[in-house]
Amino acid sequence: MEPSSGSRDAGPAVPPVAAVLPAGGSGERLGGATPKQFCAVQGRPLVSYTVRAMERIGWISDIIVVVSPGNIETMKSIIEKYGHKRVTVVKGGITRHRSIFNGLKVFAENEFSNHLLQKPEVVIIHDAVRPFVEEDILLKVVVAAKEHGAAGAIRPLVSTVIASAADGCLDHSLERARYRASEMPQAFLFDIIYEAYQQCTDYDLDYGTECLHLALKYCKTNAKLIEGAADLWKVTYKRDLYAAESIIKDNLSQQVCVITDVKEMAAQVGSLLHESLQSQIKVEAMSASLSKNDSHLQNILSGHCYNFVCVNDKKCAIQETQQLVDVLEKSNIALLYPVVLILVDLDVSENISFSIGMEELTRLKKFAREVKKKNILVYGLLIQYK
Amino acid sequence: MEPSSGSRDAGPAVPPVAAVLPAGGSGERLGGATPKQFCAVQGRPLVSYTVRAMERIGWISDIIVVVSPGNIETMKSIIEKYGHKRVTVVKGGITRHRSIFNGLKVFAENEFSNHLLQKPEVVIIHDAVRPFVEEDILLKVVVAAKEHGAAGAIRPLVSTVIASAADGCLDHSLERARYRASEMPQAFLFDIIYEAYQQCTDYDLDYGTECLHLALKYCKTNAKLIEGAADLWKVTYKRDLYAAESIIKDNLSQQVCVITDVKEMAAQVGSLLHESLQSQIKVEAMSASLSKNDSHLQNILSGHCYNFVCVNDKKCAIQETQQLVDVLEKSNIALLYPVVLILVDLDVSENISFSIGMEELTRLKKFAREVKKKNILVYGLLIQYK
Repeated sequence: MEPSSGSRDAGPAVPPVAAVLPAGGSGERLGGATPKQFCAVQGRPLVSYTVRAMERIGWISDIIVVVSPGNIETMKSIIEKYGHKRVTVVKGGITRHRSIFNGLKVFAENEFSNHLLQKPEVVIIHDAVRPFVEEDILLKVVVAAKEHGAAGAIRPLVSTVIASAADGCLDHSLERARYRASEMPQAFLFDIIYEAYQQCTDYDLDYGTECLHLALKYCKTNAKLIEGAADLWKVTYKRDLYAAESIIKDNLSQQVCVITDVKEMAAQVGSLLHESLQSQIKVEAMSASLSKNDSHLQNILSGHCYNFVCVNDKKCAIQETQQLVDVLEKSNIALLYPVVLILVDLDVSENISFSIGMEELTRLKKFAREVKKKNILVYGLLIQYK
Repeated sequence: MEPSSGSRDAGPAVPPVAAVLPAGGSGERLGGATPKQFCAVQGRPLVSYTVRAMERIGWISDIIVVVSPGNIETMKSIIEKYGHKRVTVVKGGITRHRSIFNGLKVFAENEFSNHLLQKPEVVIIHDAVRPFVEEDILLKVVVAAKEHGAAGAIRPLVSTVIASAADGCLDHSLERARYRASEMPQAFLFDIIYEAYQQCTDYDLDYGTECLHLALKYCKTNAKLIEGAADLWKVTYKRDLYAAESIIKDNLSQQVCVITDVKEMAAQVGSLLHESLQSQIKVEAMSASLSKNDSHLQNILSGHCYNFVCVNDKKCAIQETQQLVDVLEKSNIALLYPVVLILVDLDVSENISFSIGMEELTRLKKFAREVKKKNILVYGLLIQYK
């Protein structure tokens, strides 16, 4: 199996991969009334970032979000508000394991969804409160799960782990280098993890926390362990929400959307730009006329991208840019941070006049001055060539 | 031993307690050039917060900060800038254990300081990158160390801990409830931990991380384990600096300094106010005339307190308040956040006239309007009674 971006459209060659996101936690440790997965970070619920991290990956066919019965409507409204796709909301159980089990059942039993979803070969299990999961680690655990039956991300231990005796005193400490913290994402051959959940005891369902343990105990499957990035940590305490916000802000400034006008010449420059940028920065690319109300653009805006490069081969692109500015204004994203908009105008006409180019730039400068008041910073680049 | 705030001045009844703060880390995991203990949080290096957390406790006689040789001057300038007291800077070794050992040597060997410091009965060991340590937990570990020889703060595990086999696959996972993360502070009878360091092998000094383990291995001392607060976590990654900043901001807004004029009547109201406030908010209290350049007030300012209540029994307190405003201005703390100053004027004169009170308030209003430009918000409360 070789999952890759966009391969979902290529037909049945790639076996289906689904993701189950337990989001049923009560957020006790956060010390607040709102469970942490629903806390707003930069104005958007944490769970929405995690769902987005999954849905941007084309080879994940279904995303199952498991929430407590009282939060089903909240979750559905988040999905609607942020335009999430391929998401099914499932009612959770009273413990983490029971919730994950419910999430898996939508592929095997009719009880939990109106229509049975197509059973995936591999299922990813990932916490809703770990929003910073990259395609790279997801692909690694999926490929390893396909080979080994189970796989999970691990991290070095930050603190020494100790065992206490009955009298509350130190019994022994573990050698830190020999142990690892088990994190998420994890992935399993669906049949293995589903069988593990079907066979495990009520005690496991009520007091266990570790899916890898169930696969080992009930299916004799030793999960492959894969070193993950530090950002995979679980948002647990209130301070973690601030930490998450800091990472989101950092990511925002390292993300750019290249919008290429549909004409051939611009498309070519757009894709070259895309290639040269993506080694340094996260690039979203789209081919679209800005004047159309494009749903992909709406998605990018709701993902809070703050930088845009628009490549055009028309001289009078300001009108179209005005429409993008209008969309940006409506989305309110420029309220918090300045949005950077770089207009690349390709002039390929035969009769090149320096003065016409200058006129163009003067108009653009005036336009830029206007929209700067709205916290949208426009830069223009006029390229003339034969 | 019954250590308590301020008991240090009471003479030799309280056996001396010292603290050793290893601050020699290189900050690799932070991904930046500056080691995390020297990173600025709200404009002040992290280590300065931790030193302050120690020095505000009167029963800690000496604070030993162990830094890498290249950072000795940096640390000394931090001590000078923030007016830290009772601090000795010691050159660290190449590993954590070697640094802590060096810190302990200032009480036992002449090699590391110009004069041998008085050997404490109990020594606290605490990371410089754990700034949020309260007197409560310090007292608990000190008292437990006095009884058991060693004691340390613990926290529940956030992630399941697993052991991997040689092939990189899961060998087994630990039952989360049976284990704890070993955190800081820890405390030891000085003779026990010093003997443990003297006896331990080079391998321990180079690869070990856990002081409790050394006390157990070399002195057969089973440390008492004490459940600590979530804020004891170790600032490890860049995101933790943001988390630390969020906690400091929260603390700031929940802290108030009650300044009581030295006259008897005001002092009485001041102490009542102190009592009634402290169940809800952290209260620093001081009896002082604002016109004097008080070093305790300077300390509170350098601790970035943002709220003050001044209780006076004079009608013309504005002049004195002006002096406090001048001090606040010089300290620059009002640059980042508004400072709230509540003036409580007690009018206990026999001839109470409503109009005189109104005059007073008008003057105060004018004064408040002026200083508001400096981000200092003054509120006045005039209490007249017979």
